[in-house]
Amino acid sequence: MYYIGVDLGGTNIAVGLVDEDGRIVHKDSVPTLREREYPEIVKDMAQLILRVIEHERINIKDVAGIGIGCPGTPDRKAGVLVYANNLKFDNAPLRDEIQKYINIPVYLDNDANVAALAESVAGAARGVAHSVTITIGTGVGSGIIIDGKVYCGFNDSGAEIGHAVICVDGEPCTCGRDGCWEAYASATALINQTKAAARNNPDSLLNTITGGNLDKIEAKTAFDAAHMGDSTALKVIERYITYLAEGITNVINIFQPEILCIGGGVCKQGEYLLKPLREMVSQKVYSRGSTRQCQIKVAEMGNDAGIVGAAMLGKTGI
Amino acid sequence: MYYIGVDLGGTNIAVGLVDEDGRIVHKDSVPTLREREYPEIVKDMAQLILRVIEHERINIKDVAGIGIGCPGTPDRKAGVLVYANNLKFDNAPLRDEIQKYINIPVYLDNDANVAALAESVAGAARGVAHSVTITIGTGVGSGIIIDGKVYCGFNDSGAEIGHAVICVDGEPCTCGRDGCWEAYASATALINQTKAAARNNPDSLLNTITGGNLDKIEAKTAFDAAHMGDSTALKVIERYITYLAEGITNVINIFQPEILCIGGGVCKQGEYLLKPLREMVSQKVYSRGSTRQCQIKVAEMGNDAGIVGAAMLGKTGI
Repeated sequence: MYYIGVDLGGTNIAVGLVDEDGRIVHKDSVPTLREREYPEIVKDMAQLILRVIEHERINIKDVAGIGIGCPGTPDRKAGVLVYANNLKFDNAPLRDEIQKYINIPVYLDNDANVAALAESVAGAARGVAHSVTITIGTGVGSGIIIDGKVYCGFNDSGAEIGHAVICVDGEPCTCGRDGCWEAYASATALINQTKAAARNNPDSLLNTITGGNLDKIEAKTAFDAAHMGDSTALKVIERYITYLAEGITNVINIFQPEILCIGGGVCKQGEYLLKPLREMVSQKVYSRGSTRQCQIKVAEMGNDAGIVGAAMLGKTGI
Repeated sequence: MYYIGVDLGGTNIAVGLVDEDGRIVHKDSVPTLREREYPEIVKDMAQLILRVIEHERINIKDVAGIGIGCPGTPDRKAGVLVYANNLKFDNAPLRDEIQKYINIPVYLDNDANVAALAESVAGAARGVAHSVTITIGTGVGSGIIIDGKVYCGFNDSGAEIGHAVICVDGEPCTCGRDGCWEAYASATALINQTKAAARNNPDSLLNTITGGNLDKIEAKTAFDAAHMGDSTALKVIERYITYLAEGITNVINIFQPEILCIGGGVCKQGEYLLKPLREMVSQKVYSRGSTRQCQIKVAEMGNDAGIVGAAMLGKTGI
């Protein structure tokens, strides 16, 4: 069988035909034109799905389902997109609307869950039953795979590991709590930590390489300066990796996934990030006496995670 | 069918015959005599199991399995008790040893997982697929039920929610990390917090009611003084409930269980504890805009949790 995966973004609707093993056979995209209401957007989506299927001369009977991933809150059982950060409408009955055009099973989920499913089926966590995928970006996204399926709680709102507090009364988080892991381990947090260090250490290379303009500081700035041996930057990175390690150790103590995947731009640092991270985790983890340890890996699916993970909802079910 | 549940403690071996609904039909116990090696202990256990079955005139063919719960680390697939806090031996092949006497399926798990399963089948979380049970005692124990079954990771070592850090660089924990939830929310932690407050506030009732002997402070001492209106005790309790609420909010953000059960002596405080706890959680939880919220309940199974939960391993499988 084949599966259709839809990555519903604020800019583009990307659709892929995916095989049993999570490989994209063919993909295509159209602009989302996000100001529109859902019936028009779904009409374009349905036409694109049919075009992708026709391109490969696949019979619709050989397509087991359509999965849709998007940033936001799905009601997975109802097939309704309750809320999406990047779209204008709320409570859109996407399943019913798509089935007006293509009458096969339709599944919805959010982008973090779908990314975790993609890693589980075809990426860094393939072959194991339990995995967790953490995506370091503007926030800290997370998806939990248990027995090969997305787990997100009774109301589809779970798996918000980035919004678990690691410092009671700590840094304010966008979610309204103080001290969430996201407020310490996201790329946004690293940028803030780097800016503070640059301000407090005028002689640091952090100031030199940004020409003294703190607004030019990116997530990679502290890594760049650390590679040049800047002691302030080295301290920023060490502290940042500590925060990352504390949260990852929490995840392992709670879930003991066989594989934990880390994705996002920060992973471009490769072993420079991962080696000290793995060392810290191995010293802290509750099961450190056990012979069977969770492996920490870099996520592999990149931009295809949305399509592949959404498509695989049709294989695993919700 | 019936199920045998064994609660293997450091003092007694308690055995119960349990029905499909998690009701104890008959139970009995013998002393563990914990200094012994496992073959002798298992021999007594097997004889007690057979006695309990015979007492009810049940045919062994109507007993689907034997479940054993104990404090420690099981290898659930192998049926081996790798390590138990309260017993002398390591790596005991309990399944094989029991099956020398009674050749039916045998399951092992630790006490926190078994307690959670008992609540799920017959206690405060009955009727829902996903629940988490937190037990506040010397430590903070936790068991996770997903789709009606115990979840504890690929190596059986997960569900250590008490050893998730809520304060990076915080109070030292028995596990070797600093800042674990257990170091703030266990009964032990509450006692330490109460002692510190008594020391710093000589005029507090905390000193009066213990006759000035801080060693007499128990987990309930701060509650007792707070009920009498002591301002120091009220602050201790408010702060303690805050720590409890931060950890519980983390659990809900991650798992969104339909029901979260809290057990342990501190629950005797009833609504005095639960009302402010629920209020704090409802203000902090990530899904606070949703119409579907996790319910926080007091665990119901008490001393029967060990027998019932262990027995139900035979029904749910591992």
